[in-house]
Amino acid sequence: MRLAELSARSGVSTATIKFYLREGLLHPGRRVTATQADYDEGHLRRLRLVRALIQVGRIPVSSAREVIAALQDERMDLHQRLGTATWALPHGPEPDETDPATEAARRTADALMERLGWHRDNACDRPSAAPAYGMLVTAIAALSRLGYPCDVEHLEPYARAAERIAVSDLDLVERCGTPDEQVEAAVALTVLYEPVLLSLRRLAEAEESRRRFDGK
Amino acid sequence: MRLAELSARSGVSTATIKFYLREGLLHPGRRVTATQADYDEGHLRRLRLVRALIQVGRIPVSSAREVIAALQDERMDLHQRLGTATWALPHGPEPDETDPATEAARRTADALMERLGWHRDNACDRPSAAPAYGMLVTAIAALSRLGYPCDVEHLEPYARAAERIAVSDLDLVERCGTPDEQVEAAVALTVLYEPVLLSLRRLAEAEESRRRFDGK
Repeated sequence: MRLAELSARSGVSTATIKFYLREGLLHPGRRVTATQADYDEGHLRRLRLVRALIQVGRIPVSSAREVIAALQDERMDLHQRLGTATWALPHGPEPDETDPATEAARRTADALMERLGWHRDNACDRPSAAPAYGMLVTAIAALSRLGYPCDVEHLEPYARAAERIAVSDLDLVERCGTPDEQVEAAVALTVLYEPVLLSLRRLAEAEESRRRFDGK
Repeated sequence: MRLAELSARSGVSTATIKFYLREGLLHPGRRVTATQADYDEGHLRRLRLVRALIQVGRIPVSSAREVIAALQDERMDLHQRLGTATWALPHGPEPDETDPATEAARRTADALMERLGWHRDNACDRPSAAPAYGMLVTAIAALSRLGYPCDVEHLEPYARAAERIAVSDLDLVERCGTPDEQVEAAVALTVLYEPVLLSLRRLAEAEESRRRFDGK
């Protein structure tokens, strides 16, 4: 298809598509004349992912470019591509190493992962999840600095819920066609399901609060 | 205690405490002389909550003031205070009513809540959870607009996980002393556990991905 059709089918303006092409977020089409190129279903899919990252996830263009680059790296297996792409997603402030709460938070995070039987090499020795591990350490340090409960016993039910959520996530991903499609869907669904999860948690809290506290 | 001690015990500078007092985020101390006031454990607790909202949750001062006002409204029962305070938390963009995907997303959200047996009055007729409901509708509309799976069958496992998380949340809250302390803790924990949950989900995804895709 030509640029105009790609724009019509994706709902993304031709100006924005050209911007994505220049920024390396979308791979070039197949040149057919000096001024025209041909685009395929792969371009449509990629545009969908870029919109998920940038328009919905509000991820900066530079991070989105890193995510896209990881997806395309054919030297890696599916697990590694997924891990590297997720690594490039924004993950909040790094742990503050000057704060004593950070070292304690790291010990809590490690004890939690050990209890769950999660592989530390996911978090530490390999790229796959290190930013998420830093994000967890930062969050635990903030809780403990403010004196709120956050030891392994408190955290474990959240981690167990996260395990179930990850099974749902990867079930959705596995229904998405080829490995290339799967890895794109995995990244998009990681980003797009975050507000789903946070809003459902607040609604479930309201429901649970009604059950426990109504009239109290 | 005097301002200097409140500052030392809370780790918040006296300048910031004075700013919070001016902005109505912290209630005034008991005046003891024309220039000095006396503060108590309630002030310490409140400062902890304000830091959780503003420094960790990055919630604007005006929203934090609304949250605090709701917590203090003694005409409401615990469930209503909690709902009103959560209502004031930031919740992302409102649903776009000009987009046909929004109406379909609302039907999906309603069908999901009905399947779960969640009370619609939590979401629609009473203030308690309406912004979270809008946040869910916005998220579902974004998924469907981009062609990603988001019908009731896909969403239900996330909602079931959210129910378990809400039970953990309210278990933590109920261990927090008086009703005033509980409602403060509930709001702080809602905000502070969001990055915990999102980071654990990414770590759990990495673990589940390793299990399914390693070497593929």
